[in-house]
Amino acid sequence: MQKKELIYEGKAKRIYSTDQEACLLMEYKDSLTAFNALKKGQFLGKGELNCKISTLIFAELKKNGVNHHWLETSSGNEMLVQKTTIIPLEVVVRNIMAGSLAKKLGRTEGEVLKQPLVEFYYKDDHLADPFVSDDQITAMGWTDQATLDYLKKEALRINHVLQNMFLKAGLKLVDFKTEFGRNVKSEIILSDEISPDCMRLWDVKTNKKMDKDRFRQDLGEVEESYLEVYERLQKGVS
Amino acid sequence: MQKKELIYEGKAKRIYSTDQEACLLMEYKDSLTAFNALKKGQFLGKGELNCKISTLIFAELKKNGVNHHWLETSSGNEMLVQKTTIIPLEVVVRNIMAGSLAKKLGRTEGEVLKQPLVEFYYKDDHLADPFVSDDQITAMGWTDQATLDYLKKEALRINHVLQNMFLKAGLKLVDFKTEFGRNVKSEIILSDEISPDCMRLWDVKTNKKMDKDRFRQDLGEVEESYLEVYERLQKGVS
Repeated sequence: MQKKELIYEGKAKRIYSTDQEACLLMEYKDSLTAFNALKKGQFLGKGELNCKISTLIFAELKKNGVNHHWLETSSGNEMLVQKTTIIPLEVVVRNIMAGSLAKKLGRTEGEVLKQPLVEFYYKDDHLADPFVSDDQITAMGWTDQATLDYLKKEALRINHVLQNMFLKAGLKLVDFKTEFGRNVKSEIILSDEISPDCMRLWDVKTNKKMDKDRFRQDLGEVEESYLEVYERLQKGVS
Repeated sequence: MQKKELIYEGKAKRIYSTDQEACLLMEYKDSLTAFNALKKGQFLGKGELNCKISTLIFAELKKNGVNHHWLETSSGNEMLVQKTTIIPLEVVVRNIMAGSLAKKLGRTEGEVLKQPLVEFYYKDDHLADPFVSDDQITAMGWTDQATLDYLKKEALRINHVLQNMFLKAGLKLVDFKTEFGRNVKSEIILSDEISPDCMRLWDVKTNKKMDKDRFRQDLGEVEESYLEVYERLQKGVS
């Protein structure tokens, strides 16, 4: 497979076309951003770490029958993925109250939810990705309720696999954000990285934050935490 | 029916107990507030006008089989209503894009929605009544999906009656906000005023705003518009 043109550059990834029409190359960058890119940082090797963590996760999801865009990890910070047309919704799954939801509802971080919660945010940087309801999405004609129901079901299935995987690594999956897209066969598949950049992971015993909140909240040891997540996951799956 | 103790005072209403356990007296105030009461105003007779407009609307809803808390209008700015336990959700129905939704989604005010949209906002002044999805509401245990489905169905039914009623008065119903509660028989009924304070009404021909947006946006003629809404509705129903 040959890397060809850069076709998209996001906050933490670059996407290249390849010599195969249905296949893209995803390059993980070392940059870190938060608060809709108002806060910026980076550390050397972050891209590679996130690519490795995503690889472990994609492999585990595959083993559990979850359809996703990952094909293979081609080098340190690069993976080959299926080309998809992204559904413009950020899909968030929450198991424990934290972040924007805790703030919005005036709740304490750490409260375990009665049931996992799926939320949709409309992907638009200019609008700061607003939170939207199913009814708003269908009234705006962005997609239909059947698709939303499918996204929720898949998101909860992924959540279940991830919760078990992280628990073996001594980590609580607090929440995560992902995206879905339609591949060339029009199948809806998971089409985003899954890494500590887009999830909250707390140590099971100490509740120590092991994810991008360390960067967001200036807690230090960002690099060390990402590395530890990778090492713990690697042990967990080996 | 005798007015007894003041049991609640809101931004635009006072609620009194009466000598009948299941019955309350609702007094409409002359005050006007906007932006979660950051902006304050009033005009003499506003309470009475809103009480009269609400009365016309409640009568029309009753004629159309909508169950609500209104019993009778006892004097100029006072009505007798059934006592209910309020479900802590503001229920908003939108037919045309305007206000906070237009801002949130970066859309132009005036765009007609593909279908009427029902939204829920969690009633909490300290949190500025945040917008919440069905899944957030059920995950927080505030109520169940069956109740939300019932609220939506009722809200759309009310919307349909109001749209027809206002159209006869030469007014487009852009959107409205209301609340529901459970009465002593545990029936879920409409339990809020319906007046230009909590809806957007535009003249069918000129799109002139005839509601609280005149106050919110300093457009002037607030009093004249409320009066015109009342007079047009009165003609429409007579």
